[in-house]
Amino acid sequence: MPSREAIADTVNRYLDLVANGKADDIVTLYADDATVEDPIGSELRRGREALHEFYAAFQDAKKETELAELRVGGAEAAFLWHLTLDAGDTRTRISPISTMTFDEEAKITSMRAFWSPSDVRVL
Amino acid sequence: MPSREAIADTVNRYLDLVANGKADDIVTLYADDATVEDPIGSELRRGREALHEFYAAFQDAKKETELAELRVGGAEAAFLWHLTLDAGDTRTRISPISTMTFDEEAKITSMRAFWSPSDVRVL
Repeated sequence: MPSREAIADTVNRYLDLVANGKADDIVTLYADDATVEDPIGSELRRGREALHEFYAAFQDAKKETELAELRVGGAEAAFLWHLTLDAGDTRTRISPISTMTFDEEAKITSMRAFWSPSDVRVL
Repeated sequence: MPSREAIADTVNRYLDLVANGKADDIVTLYADDATVEDPIGSELRRGREALHEFYAAFQDAKKETELAELRVGGAEAAFLWHLTLDAGDTRTRISPISTMTFDEEAKITSMRAFWSPSDVRVL
């Protein structure tokens, strides 16, 4: 099982790359054949190509991320975080609760994000 | 699918009953054959009898609960909450992130709680 520290490190790198990285970088945190369900209830994306497409769609948006609360149990994590999107005139914030599972090397094997459009706040 | 309101109502009733109710009350929020994994990585408990035993073990402790953040997606919820245990001289707090799945009637079909002993804080 990956250590708590290794899991926390992957979560922190993930949020840093969501803010400042490219899809190419983000997908390196995922294991082969990993899945993403974001938001919960949407179509499940599986594999590096599908995940790359998902992250590429908003890699150029100006944004910030912040980790608010992180809980680790076994080879899983749940965390509350803030995503602030800066579209010039308008700044909006979503604060998802995301869950992740990890492999032995603390690569992400699945990610699920709990949020809905009604959670989006204009700052 | 249960409505967001029905899911939020079950979550709020759950936290109220964890604080002020008995195991008999809490298990009524669960569907038959529901599962509990609390904390993540511990043995999976399944069915009303196993769940009753779980909640009965701490039903008489003096405690408070507070919902901090709730996210609903599809027939699932994730929430950050505070559990404050009052043992007379000592007050401790755990703030788990819990996830739940629900059936059509917004009864809980599974509950998983992300926390670990290192998250316990003495107040």
